[in-house]
Amino acid sequence: MTQTENVKRKRGRPPKTANNDFRDTRQELIKVGLSVLTERGYSYTGIDEILRKAGVPKGSFYHYFDNKESFGRILIEAYGRYFAGKLDRWFQDRTLTPLQRLDAFVEDAKAGMKRFEYRRGCLIGNLGQEMTALPEGFRALLQDVFRDWERRTEELLAEAQEAGEISPDVQCEQMSHFFWIGWEGAVLRAKLDQSPKPLDRFAEGFRSLLRGV
Amino acid sequence: MTQTENVKRKRGRPPKTANNDFRDTRQELIKVGLSVLTERGYSYTGIDEILRKAGVPKGSFYHYFDNKESFGRILIEAYGRYFAGKLDRWFQDRTLTPLQRLDAFVEDAKAGMKRFEYRRGCLIGNLGQEMTALPEGFRALLQDVFRDWERRTEELLAEAQEAGEISPDVQCEQMSHFFWIGWEGAVLRAKLDQSPKPLDRFAEGFRSLLRGV
Repeated sequence: MTQTENVKRKRGRPPKTANNDFRDTRQELIKVGLSVLTERGYSYTGIDEILRKAGVPKGSFYHYFDNKESFGRILIEAYGRYFAGKLDRWFQDRTLTPLQRLDAFVEDAKAGMKRFEYRRGCLIGNLGQEMTALPEGFRALLQDVFRDWERRTEELLAEAQEAGEISPDVQCEQMSHFFWIGWEGAVLRAKLDQSPKPLDRFAEGFRSLLRGV
Repeated sequence: MTQTENVKRKRGRPPKTANNDFRDTRQELIKVGLSVLTERGYSYTGIDEILRKAGVPKGSFYHYFDNKESFGRILIEAYGRYFAGKLDRWFQDRTLTPLQRLDAFVEDAKAGMKRFEYRRGCLIGNLGQEMTALPEGFRALLQDVFRDWERRTEELLAEAQEAGEISPDVQCEQMSHFFWIGWEGAVLRAKLDQSPKPLDRFAEGFRSLLRGV
């Protein structure tokens, strides 16, 4: 390809088929939905706001999703998967010891909350908090996400135990449950305090428990 | 007073002055506001709904409060005080050892959540979670409430330490902060799971930390 040809190419993205357009718009709505729900939860969020932020014409929401509830379900599942990927990235990093991986996850979470000026927390925690106001069907989905994250954390703790980094008395399943109970509280408090300290404080206590203090 | 006189008395409440009416209605709005915010938070709650539930004519809200924000502030302070009283009731019960008092508080919280079928959590936790969507002035109020509860908890832990119930290495201030970080997460999860287990699991881990495991 000559330079002339290069210059002649249209700027911007290559032309898309109608099918690609559909997929892109849908993905954009999911992306915006995730950011809004991570900031403010579900109940208070209007579809209009998400369409406006995504630059999608008002009223075309139902072209992409059945209703707000089905959109919410898709967002819960998408966030659960996204975050499971994040956990794997840290928890399976073989260049670190198991406990160093947990620390790396905590540092990453601190950096993430700071980047968004402590406005964004955890989508699953937000929705768990407002469960009373949500469609009842969301409950099992949210619980599944927690169970999935806990399973990944339990595996990490088991590795740490094998490596002799944590006390042999630690019950890894119970402890991963304890971690996710407290971690959600720490994220909540970090948002309120606009500070990483609650995340540090919780992680510090958790590490003491793992060591058998 | 003879029995006849007693019988002649009008049934129901004694007649009230206009001033009493004002106070009663205002108190009723606060009571209903507390229950609704404890269930569902602030953002999603409309004043109309609270007026309807309180049986107060629509539109008369501004007779009692300046606006929704000032009503919210009053609710945060009322809940903070109410809960501080509850903490005192348990934490200052001299018939129990300090750690038994903490256990009694946990059992009371479990019973309270069960009574309301895990629909109600903590008003301060709910509002902390939705802080991004709240008037910025709420932040300091919510933080003050946590600091107050933490101070009461710190005193209990110091008593437990003096009594030799917990490790002398425990930093009571840090540990009371840890408690409230994790406890809010446990209340959130108990609502989601409709179960007392997250409260038990967190309390159990906390006690291990206090013992120095």
